[in-house]
This record gives sequence, structure tokens and C-alpha cells, in this order.
Amino acid sequence: MAVSTVYTTQSFHSTCSISTPSKTHLGFNQKKQILFYNSGKKVTNRGIAAVPYVIRCSGDTLVIGLAADSGCGKSTFMRRLTSVFGGAAEPPKGGNPDSNTLISDTTTVICLDDYHSLDRTGRKEKGVTALDPRANDFDLMYEQVKAMKEGKAVDKPIYNHVTGLLDPPELIKPPKILVIEGLHPMFDQRVRDLLDFSIYLDISNEVKFAWKIQVLIRFREKPAIVSPAKSMSCNPKISDELQRDMAERGHSLESIKASIEARKPDFEAYIDPQKQYADAVIEVLPTQLIPGDNEGKILRVRLIMKEGVKYFNPVYLFDEGSTISWIPCGRKLTCSYPGIKFTYGPESYFGHEVSVLEMDGQFDRLDELIYVESHLSNLSTKFYGEVTQQMLKHSEFPGSNNGTGLFQTIVGLKIRDLYEQITASKAAAPLQATKA
Amino acid sequence: MAVSTVYTTQSFHSTCSISTPSKTHLGFNQKKQILFYNSGKKVTNRGIAAVPYVIRCSGDTLVIGLAADSGCGKSTFMRRLTSVFGGAAEPPKGGNPDSNTLISDTTTVICLDDYHSLDRTGRKEKGVTALDPRANDFDLMYEQVKAMKEGKAVDKPIYNHVTGLLDPPELIKPPKILVIEGLHPMFDQRVRDLLDFSIYLDISNEVKFAWKIQVLIRFREKPAIVSPAKSMSCNPKISDELQRDMAERGHSLESIKASIEARKPDFEAYIDPQKQYADAVIEVLPTQLIPGDNEGKILRVRLIMKEGVKYFNPVYLFDEGSTISWIPCGRKLTCSYPGIKFTYGPESYFGHEVSVLEMDGQFDRLDELIYVESHLSNLSTKFYGEVTQQMLKHSEFPGSNNGTGLFQTIVGLKIRDLYEQITASKAAAPLQATKA
Repeated sequence: MAVSTVYTTQSFHSTCSISTPSKTHLGFNQKKQILFYNSGKKVTNRGIAAVPYVIRCSGDTLVIGLAADSGCGKSTFMRRLTSVFGGAAEPPKGGNPDSNTLISDTTTVICLDDYHSLDRTGRKEKGVTALDPRANDFDLMYEQVKAMKEGKAVDKPIYNHVTGLLDPPELIKPPKILVIEGLHPMFDQRVRDLLDFSIYLDISNEVKFAWKIQVLIRFREKPAIVSPAKSMSCNPKISDELQRDMAERGHSLESIKASIEARKPDFEAYIDPQKQYADAVIEVLPTQLIPGDNEGKILRVRLIMKEGVKYFNPVYLFDEGSTISWIPCGRKLTCSYPGIKFTYGPESYFGHEVSVLEMDGQFDRLDELIYVESHLSNLSTKFYGEVTQQMLKHSEFPGSNNGTGLFQTIVGLKIRDLYEQITASKAAAPLQATKA
Repeated sequence: MAVSTVYTTQSFHSTCSISTPSKTHLGFNQKKQILFYNSGKKVTNRGIAAVPYVIRCSGDTLVIGLAADSGCGKSTFMRRLTSVFGGAAEPPKGGNPDSNTLISDTTTVICLDDYHSLDRTGRKEKGVTALDPRANDFDLMYEQVKAMKEGKAVDKPIYNHVTGLLDPPELIKPPKILVIEGLHPMFDQRVRDLLDFSIYLDISNEVKFAWKIQVLIRFREKPAIVSPAKSMSCNPKISDELQRDMAERGHSLESIKASIEARKPDFEAYIDPQKQYADAVIEVLPTQLIPGDNEGKILRVRLIMKEGVKYFNPVYLFDEGSTISWIPCGRKLTCSYPGIKFTYGPESYFGHEVSVLEMDGQFDRLDELIYVESHLSNLSTKFYGEVTQQMLKHSEFPGSNNGTGLFQTIVGLKIRDLYEQITASKAAAPLQATKA
């Protein structure tokens, strides 16, 4: 069993300083790691590395949890989020080409599939899916996220989505903002309690089905070019299922339905319940603008924002706290069929008071977006039109013309705002103490 | 035949001056007048009086048409309108106690029933209703309205709603604002063309039915105190029908229905079509907040405002020209069941582009109204809260807690604005001419 010594830069409650650890980073070696993950045995204080050259303020890594089923656009969301902070997100340089991690100046996004305790073969042998908590190591997830939140580097395992195996770990230095994205960021209470902000991407079955068909069609048309695992970072289940689908079921409409149905019990038992804990939920549903439509091309997207979350002020439309629907198409804005409809209002969500902003339909042109942006309040933009600018910048990303892109961008801005407010309040706290 | 000489203060296009007519006012005598009305014969230049002491600017009497079926709240509307201009409206002093006219400092409201060419007996003999154009003298209506618009006093006939007879005429001096209200202000094209602004009160059959029952119940409970003709100015049809109902049909639900049904053909032929010409329509419908409700207590009221009318800028909610629904009840406003819902948006109405503001439900408290007022734009108020102040001032008027009162008040403000804009543009025109 590989146990690395823990080196912290400072104690949890201290302010910033440069650490001078006497030992070097100790990681797993590949063999031990694979043995470990296959065993699923739980140990403590593993994989937490102290790197002498890292200067960190302990406790000031913001931890964001992003939960969603596979193939639900987490990767796009993460690219939008990191873009808001100004940098491009890339895999760790010189590391495992199949790494699931994305690193930018301020943000590190890790994929929680890396905490699978069972590889593909292991899961098959035990008859459990990747959704099952028994296939995941929550102790390690908790310890490593906690370590990073406290300013410590960790040796995070890698789950290789291409091979289905557990690869040697990679060193992850604590960033300013750590995003943990995957199936279970809010499943384990200890991990959940570490989160400064949590998001759940809630894709309706109709839309999942439509999207899955689209991915399969692309894969069938250009299997060499469009590797699902490669084209969508952290989209293993599409990859795994695609492989299983194609091997075992073919890929008829029925097989896709069967695949979704087979996945349902575990999804409903372990993934879906997490949304009750989320500070923000992005719900993706079929449009209501076209009666009976379930093509999944035009989407109705709802941004559910929990009230009373410190440093998080929900976006609103026209009049905070009232119930509004708005069809901006009219004398000032021309929309093609079926148009655009926004809805806003207070609701109750799992017993929590929330505000919900909904967009049904899609943008035809850019000026529509700036028009919409100018009517939304509490966007946490730094200048007029920043949302539109961000959306324009990534107009090739999926969902750029509908509510998924818009709300991902808005949530990105809210997270930046959250980060800046928390940083400012922490910077002010010692000053206050000095003055007192 | 009585023909009075016409004395104008000035020619139609001239500016203000004091007239020095050489003859005194010549009116009808009672006998001739009654003969005339019973005959229904048309003559010109009748009943137009020149009064030497009236100083008027020719052509600057604003003429407003208000069309509606009987018992539809025209009287309340007029009281709200005159209140906006600051004065109280009263019948002409020392005149016929059954006069239908209301006079305030700026505004004179005349009831077009005064242009009935047939009295109650005459209508019965000829088998026509008061709605039928054959029972009304549009030539005289046109001539007298035109005369007043040109700054001339007229000897206007009086239809006595209590006796059903035509009484001796009363002298009406041209006011700053002349409101002609009744069944047919937009029926005759010549009269219609004299209107600077026109309003149609469109009460749905369900609501009419509910209101009629309320009036009948009040009348049955307190027939001596609540004389329908007296309690509602210009409500002859309720009075007439009530008398007929009670004499011929009794007053069961069925009889009220039968009375409404009997009225329908003429209403649909002569009254209803006028709404296509109106600059503003106030539609009164049953609420949609309570499914299946048709009690007529909670109302859905729509203010339909024609676009492109000079000096008339439609009111809007939040975003001009888009489609919006707004339930102000929420975190800032507590409403009792069934709440309040506003809707706003562009529509087409008889081929015209219109903006429609709708209010469904009713106010519980005053602060709700000021909250609503603060979110409406283009109200033409002179200070913040003027709508609320007006509504408060007349909180005992019917409809003060719902859209009828609110929209009547708003239309009153729009008419004041129209008057002020037209007056200002007329004052500026000679200046411009002098400069040129």
C-alpha cells in the first residue's frame, strides 16, 4: 500500500506563506495503484503530495461541484467557466494523454471518474455500473478534495476512458478554483460539505435520448474521427455504452432506449437525488413552443437558483421575486419560428426557496442576445455585454444559441463573482482583526 | 321647425378672439322639439346657439367619443376622467334635474341618448330599440358636435330616462374637452371624423349578465332607494329593460338571459362594430385565474391601445413591444387568492396594430397598486404615484380594486396628455408661422 506523507504549506486557518517542506513528493507507482483500485480497499492519507515550490494560502481554494450524468455537456460547461476567468483550459502538460483533467490559470477541473475504485473489467465482474457508489472511492475523493481545499497538492488517480483501466496518478496542485465534475460530487456528505458552490445539470430523458442518438449517428458516420471518448472529455459512459451497445445490442432506436432504461435504476438511486443539494440546477427539457416536439433540437432550459446562499445573488428578469414571462420577439426583435420565451419567478425546489429563470427556444442572431442580456439583472458581469461577448467567443460550442450556453455562461460569471467576494472577504478579515 | 342662427366666434382656422355677435341665443321651444323628435325628420343648422359672453378659440375643443352598451360603467369612467383634470363633474346648475350632462371646469360630458329621435312610446310604436339607428338623429348629433368642436354653443335636446320622454333642450357651451358618451359615438362617419380620441368599453356577455343580476337584486331589495336610472347616469337601457322585464317577464335568471338575448341582434349590428374604430378599447372579461369562474366578481380587463395614433403613446410593461406576463405577487407583494396577473404585448385588432395591457384579478391593498404603477411606463402621470392617488381618491367607485378602475384612470391620464399636447402644438403653430 502506497501512503505518501502529507506536507501542508500551513495549518488550515493560517494566512499565506511559502512552505519549506523537507521531503519530496511521494506518488503511487503504477503497479501498486492498479492493485489498490482493483481491490477497492479504503485507506487514509493517500495520494496527498506536498510540493516545495507551491505557494498557497491555505483554505482559499474555492471548490465547485458539478454533477451530471455522462454526455450532458459538463465539458462544454467547464470550457465556458474557465473562459470567464480569462484562460484556456488544457490537459496537464507532458502528462498522460488520456488525462481527464483540464487546467487553466485559475481553474483546475478534475473528473470524478478518476475516483472509480473498479475499472471496466472490475465493474463487469462485480456486476455494478459506474453510477454505483461501490464502484467509486469516496474516502479518497474526500481526502484529496479536502487536501486541495487546504492548499495541498495531491496525486490524483486517472481513470482511462479509452482503455477502461486505471492509469498512474497525476500531480494536481491546488488551484484558485477547483471544479470537481462527474457523477457524484454531492453524493458523499463529507465531499458535499467541502463544496463552496454546487451545480447539477439535469437533462430530461427525452433530451438525453435525442442527444444519444445524435452522438451515435456521428459515431456511425465517422467512427475514426469522432471518438466519443475523445470528442467529449469525461464522457465515458457514452463511450462505454457505445462500445457495449455496438457489441451487444447494435444501435437501433430500441437499443438506445434499452440502454437508457438499463441505466435508470442506478441513476435514480445515486445520481438524481444529488440535485436537492445543488445551489444551482440547469434543467434541460424539450421545448414547449412547438406542441408535441421531442426532437431535442429546440430546448427549454431552466436555471434554478437557490435563495439565501452566501455570495450568490440569483439573476432576475425585470422585477425580482415576482413571476414573469417574456417573449422578447416583437417590435424590436424579430425571431424565426418558434421564437424565444423567457420565464422567471420564485418556486420551491425540494423544500428550498429558489428563483427560476427559464429560456425556451433559440437565438437567431447576436443582437438578440445582447437585447436579452440588457434585460437581465444580477448577472455579475464586469461590463455591459459581457455575457454576449462570452457566448460569441465560443459560438462553436454546443448550446451557444440556446439556454444551455446562456445559463452555463451566467453560472460561470456567478462563480467568478463568488470567488471574488470570498477572496475579498478573506482579505478583509485579517485587516479587521488588526484594526480591532 | 326651429332653426337657430349660427354665430361663430371666429372662422374655423383662426386663433382666439372675443366674439361680438349681434343676435342672442335662439333655442327650441319644448313643443316644437318634442314634435321634431317624434317625427324623426332631419334638418340642418338646428339648435346651434351663439352666446355673446363665450370666448373660445375656434377648433380647440377636444372631442372624445366613449362608446359602450348601457350599464357598462361609462358614468364611473367619466367621473374618473373629469377627476384627472381636477374638477368635480356636476349636472348643469338650475337646469332640468333629469339632465344627462355632466360639467366640470374643463370637461363636458354629454349623453348621446339625448339624440334619440324617438321617445320610449315612439320606439315601442315603431318596434325599434334605442340601439337602432332609426331611433337616433345622427344629423343633429353631427351638427351639434361639429358646432361645439368649432367653439359654438348649442341647444342640446334632453332624453329623460325616467319618463322616457324628450324634455326641453339645455344650453351647452363648448368646453375644453367635450366627451360624447353613449351607444353610437362612432356609428356615423361624420361624427366619428370629429373625434380626436375614441374609446370603446367592451363588456363580455358573461360579465354583463353578472352585472345585470347585481343591479336587479339591488333594485328588488331597495326599489325606492336604488332607482337604476338615477343611480347610474346614462343607464337608460337598464332602466327601460328593468321596467319591461318586471312588467312582462318577471326577473328570474331566465328572464335576464332572455332580455340580453333579445338585445343581441341590434347590439351586434349597430353597437359592437364601432370598436374597430376605437383608439382605445377596455375589454372586461371573466377572470382566468379561477378555472370555470363566471361570477363576474373577479375580472380580467384588457386595455387595447391602437399604435400610430398621434399624441397617444400606449402604456407598456417592462419592455415596449415584447410580450410579457407578470404576476407581481411574490417575495415583495403578498396577494390573496387568486392573485393578480398582468399581461402585455403587441397584437392585431381588426387589422390594426395594437398594444394590449391586461390585468386579471384584484388589488387587496393600496401598496400593491403603487407597486404596479411603478412598473408601468408611458403612464402620462405628472408625478410618481398619480395613478394610485387617483384610484385612492375614488376608492368607493365601482372597479377601484381591479383593471376597470385602473385602466379608466390610465385612459383619463392619456386624454389629459393628448389635450395638453394638442394645445401645445396649436400654441406653437402660429409662433412657427411668425418665425418662418
